[in-house]
Amino acid sequence: MVLTLEGKDDALLPDFPKGPLQPYRARASFSWKELLLFLEGEEMLRFKRTIFSALENDPLFAQHRGADLPLEKYRELTFLRCKRVFEYDFLSAEDMLQTPLKILAIIHCLGMYDWSLATKYFLHTLVFSSSIYNLGTDRHFMYIPKIFNMEIFGCFALTELSHGSNTKGIQTTAHYDPSSEEFIIHSPDFKASKFWVGNMGKTATHAVVYAQLHTPGGQCHGLHAFVVQIRDPKTLLPMPGVMVGDIGRKLGQNGLDNGFAMFHKVRIPRRDLLNRTGDVTPEGTYVTPFKDDRRRFGASLGSLSFGRVSIMGMSIINLKLALCITIRFSATRRQFGPTDADEIPILEYQMQQWRLLPYLAATYALDHFYKSLFLDLTEFQRGLQTQDRSARQAELGREIHALSSAGKPLASWMVQRGIQECREACGGHGYLAVNRLGELRDDNDPNCTYEGDNNVLLQQTSNYLLGLLDDRTRDGARFESPLKTVDFLEGYPGILSQRFTCPSVGDGWDTTVSLEAYRWLVCYLLQESARELSRQRSLGSSDFDARNNSQVYHCRSLALAFMEFTVAQRFHDTHSPSVPPSLRGVLGRLSALYVLWSLHSHLASLYQGGDASRKEFSLPCKKALGSLLMQLKGDAVALVDVLAPPDFVLDAPIGRADGELYRNLWAAVLQESKVLERASWWPEFSAKKPVVGSLKPKL
Amino acid sequence: MVLTLEGKDDALLPDFPKGPLQPYRARASFSWKELLLFLEGEEMLRFKRTIFSALENDPLFAQHRGADLPLEKYRELTFLRCKRVFEYDFLSAEDMLQTPLKILAIIHCLGMYDWSLATKYFLHTLVFSSSIYNLGTDRHFMYIPKIFNMEIFGCFALTELSHGSNTKGIQTTAHYDPSSEEFIIHSPDFKASKFWVGNMGKTATHAVVYAQLHTPGGQCHGLHAFVVQIRDPKTLLPMPGVMVGDIGRKLGQNGLDNGFAMFHKVRIPRRDLLNRTGDVTPEGTYVTPFKDDRRRFGASLGSLSFGRVSIMGMSIINLKLALCITIRFSATRRQFGPTDADEIPILEYQMQQWRLLPYLAATYALDHFYKSLFLDLTEFQRGLQTQDRSARQAELGREIHALSSAGKPLASWMVQRGIQECREACGGHGYLAVNRLGELRDDNDPNCTYEGDNNVLLQQTSNYLLGLLDDRTRDGARFESPLKTVDFLEGYPGILSQRFTCPSVGDGWDTTVSLEAYRWLVCYLLQESARELSRQRSLGSSDFDARNNSQVYHCRSLALAFMEFTVAQRFHDTHSPSVPPSLRGVLGRLSALYVLWSLHSHLASLYQGGDASRKEFSLPCKKALGSLLMQLKGDAVALVDVLAPPDFVLDAPIGRADGELYRNLWAAVLQESKVLERASWWPEFSAKKPVVGSLKPKL
Repeated sequence: MVLTLEGKDDALLPDFPKGPLQPYRARASFSWKELLLFLEGEEMLRFKRTIFSALENDPLFAQHRGADLPLEKYRELTFLRCKRVFEYDFLSAEDMLQTPLKILAIIHCLGMYDWSLATKYFLHTLVFSSSIYNLGTDRHFMYIPKIFNMEIFGCFALTELSHGSNTKGIQTTAHYDPSSEEFIIHSPDFKASKFWVGNMGKTATHAVVYAQLHTPGGQCHGLHAFVVQIRDPKTLLPMPGVMVGDIGRKLGQNGLDNGFAMFHKVRIPRRDLLNRTGDVTPEGTYVTPFKDDRRRFGASLGSLSFGRVSIMGMSIINLKLALCITIRFSATRRQFGPTDADEIPILEYQMQQWRLLPYLAATYALDHFYKSLFLDLTEFQRGLQTQDRSARQAELGREIHALSSAGKPLASWMVQRGIQECREACGGHGYLAVNRLGELRDDNDPNCTYEGDNNVLLQQTSNYLLGLLDDRTRDGARFESPLKTVDFLEGYPGILSQRFTCPSVGDGWDTTVSLEAYRWLVCYLLQESARELSRQRSLGSSDFDARNNSQVYHCRSLALAFMEFTVAQRFHDTHSPSVPPSLRGVLGRLSALYVLWSLHSHLASLYQGGDASRKEFSLPCKKALGSLLMQLKGDAVALVDVLAPPDFVLDAPIGRADGELYRNLWAAVLQESKVLERASWWPEFSAKKPVVGSLKPKL
Repeated sequence: MVLTLEGKDDALLPDFPKGPLQPYRARASFSWKELLLFLEGEEMLRFKRTIFSALENDPLFAQHRGADLPLEKYRELTFLRCKRVFEYDFLSAEDMLQTPLKILAIIHCLGMYDWSLATKYFLHTLVFSSSIYNLGTDRHFMYIPKIFNMEIFGCFALTELSHGSNTKGIQTTAHYDPSSEEFIIHSPDFKASKFWVGNMGKTATHAVVYAQLHTPGGQCHGLHAFVVQIRDPKTLLPMPGVMVGDIGRKLGQNGLDNGFAMFHKVRIPRRDLLNRTGDVTPEGTYVTPFKDDRRRFGASLGSLSFGRVSIMGMSIINLKLALCITIRFSATRRQFGPTDADEIPILEYQMQQWRLLPYLAATYALDHFYKSLFLDLTEFQRGLQTQDRSARQAELGREIHALSSAGKPLASWMVQRGIQECREACGGHGYLAVNRLGELRDDNDPNCTYEGDNNVLLQQTSNYLLGLLDDRTRDGARFESPLKTVDFLEGYPGILSQRFTCPSVGDGWDTTVSLEAYRWLVCYLLQESARELSRQRSLGSSDFDARNNSQVYHCRSLALAFMEFTVAQRFHDTHSPSVPPSLRGVLGRLSALYVLWSLHSHLASLYQGGDASRKEFSLPCKKALGSLLMQLKGDAVALVDVLAPPDFVLDAPIGRADGELYRNLWAAVLQESKVLERASWWPEFSAKKPVVGSLKPKL
């Protein structure tokens, strides 16, 4: 479908103000409005604009986001804003079902404004509610309307002070007492306190609590989830037996109240066990549709997949914002030039292009990827709801798990590095808080950690691939998966023996060449990882040790390379007939840059395993990179115009759409409190002079 | 000199408390006390302990460092602490001359406690005073005692809102008026306001201001430095014509008041031109001992070298602290294990070792390097004071400039990445502000930017090396330098044609092999950079363009590889006869790990340019890395015990010396304000319920 711009009202796609960015905008090879419409569609665009306008016109959102407020003030403000979002009720349940991407869109719009707000809202309305919905049964659905009218406020309590990644080690217990038909929730000691739980610090009234379920007679049935009331909604005071508090200041997202809770023999009714995967009869007998405890456990944690895909999106949003700020800055900041009198924008330097434009390409590629993976996930979730027990559904679950387990690390790390590069690329001005790059970096950081530590998660993906290889080696099973991301591996012996054919050094580089090299790389790393594992085992290592000692340089690289390739391939695949001719050029160049840049980081592996002549590869690869940077330089400003929220939301003086870098920055600095005022403590300098050496210690 | 432990009092080297870290401490291959004494010497150790004890026993330092205080409070506290440091007067002028490393030591001790304090003190007592001392003449020395009794307070004002890296583009003017024998300091517009100046925001009374000097008749003589009074020391109110203020919150170091100043025709006496490199006669004639304006400019900026070496040290301090926290955490945090019941410390995982131990090795290597470079620099400064005009002195200046210009980027980036790795390696607990990793990251960040943007600075080093190559090609000049860091390049044609001989895959790897590979690498990158430059020129590029387009993949890599090699070589060189036999093992392993790990990041270049068989290199290299990690794992805790300041200064619950990770963290969380208290705004939840959809916007 080719979209045209005719008839689009100015409110939907307003022109940018004239100013110093104009020369770059005029040089763009495409229309930013056309690309934006093509990527988002009119309906989604209108939806986002509605949210942004509501925030911009509401005085509650008109002040600073809050990072420099005292902790309690910031949390109050975030809570009030969260409540206000309920009053706006941007998204109806029908809308949600019809256009699931709107669920992400609302989180991302709020997140662009402030992640504390978005996370607070997300944890309550999505994580808490979907845990109840997915892990519970009919008897729990009465909680759902209470969530959506804020009668109660929820949180998701899995990790403990001494256990995070190793969820099976969780120590909170739930003993069933048939005499009263209650569970007794208990923390054996402070190390078993639930810890890091978002919304738990000050606001949550209810928690989904994971605990080891024990039935009378002492049998432990493993981790189960329970709904536990932790505060009285009428007073926000803790329930008897619950010690609940705030874990304090974090590196970022300080509007969100992360908390802890210790339970001292807290009794809850039997019905508050979320019993989809296992239940206890009134008499105290444990019943489950799963034969295998590990399978039951896996199913009960399945709802974390949604979190990982969401985090990919949250990360990408952060990089979008950082790049808008930094590329607009780079196009207007002038420093040095061919002559002393003639300074040029720093975006003209190859170094600056090399630092920033690959991240811009990666943003477009990963933005496309997480959205498409989210749609795959909603298909999978529909299967869950309809009790689809087909092999395809099971395979789809495994594949999505593998993709989200490497996708989150890939995205969150890339964004972490990208924001840091942006911070540095803006020099000193990037270090000024008002320009927001620090806040973005701090708010993005937990994406590397929560919903699974990145390095730990990557093992899920390499295990998936190595498992497929095992199946093939042992049983001759084909490499194939519902989303076809592993199908190419079927040709792996042939791919590995392929000679790499290097393109001629022209001004172009066919992306299919890069993708072919990537296929080879993934096959090579798969083979090397399998070899390393069996080498470790042949040395007498246990399976535990063999796996641990094969991560560095092997399984870890395999998971990342597989993921980069999958992202690149999906981005490349979409750029054929469906793309309007006027956009093919720029999207093709972004795709080429992303795959080439990612591939370039694996150069050593390509040399090490391949038999292609070495110099044959590196030189054309670097030239092609240089040429792509040069070509994309003129499009860079228009490409961030596509990504940019309104100035009110972006909220960085050096990144405003008018490009008036210094005027905006100067104005922002002068608007801060007491800028020109003498410090209140001035007599400490002027009157109370130190007596030098008066306290000199004896050395 | 072999130091023994006999007779050292417990106060100087107290034992660590018993606790969960004991098993690792018992496994160490060396005595941490012996290594600490060997590295620091007793006098320095005593000096540092004195400073730490003074801070620990002084109530003014007993509270939080301040990052969570309101901006004005934190700045007041930092100022009061700075004043208190004057009262302690830790370092006399004689001490300073006798043991110049004590100058760095005091900054680093204060910095370990809080960088805002250290920077505030450093900018006033060292940067401001040494600018006056180095750029001025006798007539300015009357300022020096006023600095050291805090009668005045100083700052160094070079950068402007629109000019940082390109200092020559600075727009502040100083017109000489012979009628009154005054200079008129003026900012033509707000973009020329001095900006980012530390201490200027609230406290400085005087500034060293860089401005374009104009004499009557309109001639401009380029950038010169002036002492300008900006505030009245009696009232801290701005002087007439000076608009001075605070630039606001930054990502870190918020106890330091960075500021801006605009000058409206501010008149200062003629004598306040810092006239070492150029002067104006009372009648208005410009006189200078330098014939070439560029040389004069270079000499006037020479004092920045001291800053760069100091920044290397500051960066390393940050990584020391981060590693102490993270390695102690890793040795006490248990997660997963061979069986569900038996969890092992995460330091036992190869992945965790691979993430952290190379940074530990790099810390030791770079710590040694910056100290030795600082001593080289003091030798050079002595030459400046004694008016040494020898060729050696000039060459020494160029060499130190090249080393500090790449040393600062190498150190600050390595530390930036290292702290980030530490933050992630501590998982969620690393994201909790109380554990300090965020503050360290934020406080370290400006090291990548100030005293020269890292990427811009690296060009100084590659230009130096390429210049030497030019001299050799054109004039047959030998590669040699006073500190001998470039002498090996004399053999470059031979080195380049050397075949790389791979060591056998044993449990060891001779560091000389790695160093030889590095020598080859530097020669190769030098050759490739020169080729790329001439290729660019042959395509018709101007010198400006040719240089800019040769940075990525060429000159930049050259500068970094040269620097890594120089650091590794110096660290390796010191570990021979002077090292006590009991310490040789561990220092040798640190040296081996640093060089191998650094080299490994250049694997692609080694393959690309070398003719050594590819697989011959990679496999033994990875095996040697794995083996070194395994060997150093048991020493890791003792190695951070050597680096760790007292708990009071380290101030991170998860990194305390007793290793009681959870007890310390739990205690710290419970001690924060209002942890268990209901939020003051609780009725906002309980009473004022939102009416969902009441504000629903029309889509």
